[in-house]
Amino acid sequence: MTLPAHSRRSFLETSLAAGTAAGLGLFSSPMSFGQEAPQVVGRLMAHTTVPMNAEPALKDLIESWMTPTDLFYIRSHAPVPKIDAKSFRLKVEGMVEQPLELSLEEIANLPQREVVATMTCAGNRRYEHSRVSPIKGVPWQEGAIGNAKWSGAILSSILKKAGVRPEASHVWFDGLDVVPHNESTIPFGASIPLRKAMDDTAEMPGSLLCTKMNGEALKPDHGWPLRTVVPGYIGARSVKWLGKITLSDRPSPNHYVATAYKVVEEGHDLEWDEEGPIYRYPINSVICNPSPGEALNAGKVTVAGYALPPGYPGVTIRAVQVSADGGKTWKRARVSSPVNQYCWVLWSTTIDVKSGTEEIIVRAIDSEGDRQPRRVDWNLKGYLFNAWHRVPVKV
Amino acid sequence: MTLPAHSRRSFLETSLAAGTAAGLGLFSSPMSFGQEAPQVVGRLMAHTTVPMNAEPALKDLIESWMTPTDLFYIRSHAPVPKIDAKSFRLKVEGMVEQPLELSLEEIANLPQREVVATMTCAGNRRYEHSRVSPIKGVPWQEGAIGNAKWSGAILSSILKKAGVRPEASHVWFDGLDVVPHNESTIPFGASIPLRKAMDDTAEMPGSLLCTKMNGEALKPDHGWPLRTVVPGYIGARSVKWLGKITLSDRPSPNHYVATAYKVVEEGHDLEWDEEGPIYRYPINSVICNPSPGEALNAGKVTVAGYALPPGYPGVTIRAVQVSADGGKTWKRARVSSPVNQYCWVLWSTTIDVKSGTEEIIVRAIDSEGDRQPRRVDWNLKGYLFNAWHRVPVKV
Repeated sequence: MTLPAHSRRSFLETSLAAGTAAGLGLFSSPMSFGQEAPQVVGRLMAHTTVPMNAEPALKDLIESWMTPTDLFYIRSHAPVPKIDAKSFRLKVEGMVEQPLELSLEEIANLPQREVVATMTCAGNRRYEHSRVSPIKGVPWQEGAIGNAKWSGAILSSILKKAGVRPEASHVWFDGLDVVPHNESTIPFGASIPLRKAMDDTAEMPGSLLCTKMNGEALKPDHGWPLRTVVPGYIGARSVKWLGKITLSDRPSPNHYVATAYKVVEEGHDLEWDEEGPIYRYPINSVICNPSPGEALNAGKVTVAGYALPPGYPGVTIRAVQVSADGGKTWKRARVSSPVNQYCWVLWSTTIDVKSGTEEIIVRAIDSEGDRQPRRVDWNLKGYLFNAWHRVPVKV
Repeated sequence: MTLPAHSRRSFLETSLAAGTAAGLGLFSSPMSFGQEAPQVVGRLMAHTTVPMNAEPALKDLIESWMTPTDLFYIRSHAPVPKIDAKSFRLKVEGMVEQPLELSLEEIANLPQREVVATMTCAGNRRYEHSRVSPIKGVPWQEGAIGNAKWSGAILSSILKKAGVRPEASHVWFDGLDVVPHNESTIPFGASIPLRKAMDDTAEMPGSLLCTKMNGEALKPDHGWPLRTVVPGYIGARSVKWLGKITLSDRPSPNHYVATAYKVVEEGHDLEWDEEGPIYRYPINSVICNPSPGEALNAGKVTVAGYALPPGYPGVTIRAVQVSADGGKTWKRARVSSPVNQYCWVLWSTTIDVKSGTEEIIVRAIDSEGDRQPRRVDWNLKGYLFNAWHRVPVKV
């Protein structure tokens, strides 16, 4: 077995101050994205446009707790598929008593729910992660996250309508998109444990078959006419352009469950088989203001950003702390938004910076007392990066 | 959802010096095992005798690199089953071209291999892990590990004989033991990725169907007449009293794959579904001499123990380091044994202890430069505990 040159489990804390501080701001240096120059598309900066993969500038992102749709990151594995709304039928099959084919109208006539939940890409913050050893994949900065109002039918109600057979334990989702894969094509696919799909509470369904985002019909880039939304899970489990639901006794064999979206260290073939798929996202927090490399005057500086609780039922953000002295002392930030499970919070504070201050750091603590880690292990695909967020500054 | 009182991801480094130093040695205080007083059985100390779960004293354990069978830990989920060697048939079924039923003679007539590999229980060191919050399960100290010579037929040769169908991706093992479970009984079961089973090299088969341990027929407690040995994987994947092999396109649904032997933090129902099974064991090292709480004279002290590389193909122990000043300085220990993949090493060194020295610490580094972690996260079942090993001493 050949091992890559990097250490398998290098701890990552990415002291940005030690790197090239200039050019890390999203819009300040297009080349910070890697080889391809990103393109401005509307209010987003696109890493790629076909398929569309784009994120907002961080200062825009934290202007409101509810992310406007035009500031919401877009993650696509394939171009937007052409779908005819009239002939569209959602298939529900596999280990069910009664396979279903549901029109959009039939789905709209099921009991509807409206929930606010944050969605985030498993690869958010990948470009920081890439500093130890470059990582393939969309080089997301910290903007692959957004908080929206999602509306639609509760997944469990459709599953109950179909009648889940007792041997089923996983729910597969297949998109109608067409992803090139190994000289052929596949749909983007995902699956979630059946228990998650059925884990509805008064506040939050386990999963939603979503037709509206922020009160309007889904935009094509966000999965029109139908997508799943799985609160607490990485965005990849919330399949866009949903075409088929399959009940099974195992996770989906789709590439994006069976191989991609796993935390592996070396990527030798056996490792993919040994690792399970990622479902939940971890606690995280990010400084969105000031920008990396920003020149500041000594004295009081406003620091602001977002913090995300881990995707556990009932767990919320308890505190957000900011440090200007490398983590020796921390100041508690003020949270200016609602504090909910499965939702980010926005926070801000003012701190004193002195001549010589090189970086500002943020970390979050959740309602269970668990802290965002100072360092995390490097992984081959750059997923779930949630070390303390450090922004280099010049005072 | 109700969360337990402990923090889900409490870091564990178990400074024993801060705890009750007395009574931590394996034989010095039987009650350190928990509620039941352990029993001496031969050269082992049994946590339970029906089924047998027993480990050796650490000073005995490191007397030789090859662990004598009577010093080899025993982990059983059920009493030794009664098996008739003459009528015994190993069944090979599932996704194969030709199901097989093989007698012991037929297995013995297949090409035989002899390998040296370390086996260790996923719960080794659990009693240290339990210090943050008590953990159910056998309260293993550091002796649930041993290094033996295993002989038998290569699993892949039997699979090739049966003809693996292309859709198969996992190999299930079922024991002939009878484990009480949910008011019924189940066999102890495991599975490994098919790729692991087929991952034979000149030095090491991916998995062995073992009939001899240290050159003698398997003892009943170690799985006579037939067991699997999976180098690099936790002991639970090396099924004793093997009765059936099933080829499948998914991991085994057996309780010990689908639910037990997972690293979970809270143990709510959904978490078991979200987490994948443990396969590989991690890097580890343990001080076996001196014993915890041992009174030492100031001056030179001999420190000795074992170190285990992680269960990655080709990865070995590069260095073992010992500290008597809380990790400020480290002395490299001398490795006195062969250095192989999938095998522990034995090491020793002399260090200076002063009046006031409270603990001795060991850590290992593997051939990839990865280090045994100072701290690890608590998990509900107390698996894979591999933080720096700390032994409190009185000087």
